Amino acid sequence: MMWTTDDATALRRAGEILTPRVADILDVWYDFIGSTPHLVTIFRRPDGEPDGQYLERVRGRFEHWVIDVCTRAFDDQWLAYQEEIGLRHHPTKKNQTDGVASPARHVPMSDMLALIVPVTLTIRNFLEEGASESDEVEAMHQAWFKTVTVTLVLWARPYAGDLW
Amino acid sequence: MMWTTDDATALRRAGEILTPRVADILDVWYDFIGSTPHLVTIFRRPDGEPDGQYLERVRGRFEHWVIDVCTRAFDDQWLAYQEEIGLRHHPTKKNQTDGVASPARHVPMSDMLALIVPVTLTIRNFLEEGASESDEVEAMHQAWFKTVTVTLVLWARPYAGDLW
Ligand code: HEM
Ligand code: HEM
Repeated sequence: MMWTTDDATALRRAGEILTPRVADILDVWYDFIGSTPHLVTIFRRPDGEPDGQYLERVRGRFEHWVIDVCTRAFDDQWLAYQEEIGLRHHPTKKNQTDGVASPARHVPMSDMLALIVPVTLTIRNFLEEGASESDEVEAMHQAWFKTVTVTLVLWARPYAGDLW
Repeated sequence: MMWTTDDATALRRAGEILTPRVADILDVWYDFIGSTPHLVTIFRRPDGEPDGQYLERVRGRFEHWVIDVCTRAFDDQWLAYQEEIGLRHHPTKKNQTDGVASPARHVPMSDMLALIVPVTLTIRNFLEEGASESDEVEAMHQAWFKTVTVTLVLWARPYAGDLW
């Protein structure tokens, strides 16, 4: 029911389909964030306006992550990278990578976790569009859902301390 | 992309399909928990053995929740109930409802959130088995996924304090 070797195979194939579409995928997700006021405010400048440069730089790393998550081995280095991304949403490290002075000191954990829903559901169209006849879209989509959820659970670690 | 009136309709219909199957659904989920040592240990007695009575009593409330989530309005009373369930997984209130002395003082947040995956994926078969020709299984399943995720995000509140 959880992670199997079939999931690993399906996720690799999903990566082949999604990699050339990664800019389109980010368009969809950024449209969602951009049209949700309490999300876009997390990218605000000290004057309260959205920081276009910050948004753009994070977008690049987000694209990179889509490819990464489908192609990299889930080893210790990958785990350490997840811990780092979690900290970059948390007050410990948000704003540092891009050297911004955003008054939004962290991404609320609730927003971070709730994004699992659009990040999971919107991928299905891209998989369907890119699938060949022998591909099982449902299997690829389930593998994507499992990976996203586990990844987000890892990112939530610094938020919950000992109770994680 | 998030919660719509179509989702509300689909979830009501899902409730009609799932309510008569609720014992079978819990069988599947309890099989999963029972076969995952780090989960079953959260129901352990002071002597380290699984507490059958505790498991059984929680199972009843879990069944109740499946029906509830599909049928109740998401109003303030519902929100207060979600807060209560979150606290019953958290050290604040775990073990109290059943008057048990389990040394497992809380359900780790990571385990709680990761269960979103099986609780989402296993429902699809039940929806397919109960659907009539005019039902859209995909729509019901998406509504279920959204509801479960939002519910779990609410339950995670006491774990993250100000950073929630
Ligand atoms: C499924 C949920 C999410 C995923 C997969 C995701 C993905 C990512 C990735 C890959 C990065 C770049 C990490 C790096 O530096 O390498 C990032 C950074 C960031 N994300 Fe998220 N994110 C999610 C939820 C959210 C939400 C809901 C927000 C709120 C708007 C958000 C705001 C940010 C911000 C502000 C940064 C930059 C942090 C910094 O200052 O370095 N993220 N995200
Ligand atoms: C999708 C995730 C989960 C759902 C939907 C869920 C659902 C529920 C529900 C409905 C209850 C009864 C609440 C009440 O008293 O009214 C409950 C209690 C409980 N759950 Fe969960 N649960 C989830 C994750 C987990 C996990 C991963 C564990 C670990 C084994 C767990 C262990 C418990 C325990 C021990 C109780 C009893 C708490 C007490 O002492 O009152 N739950 N759960």
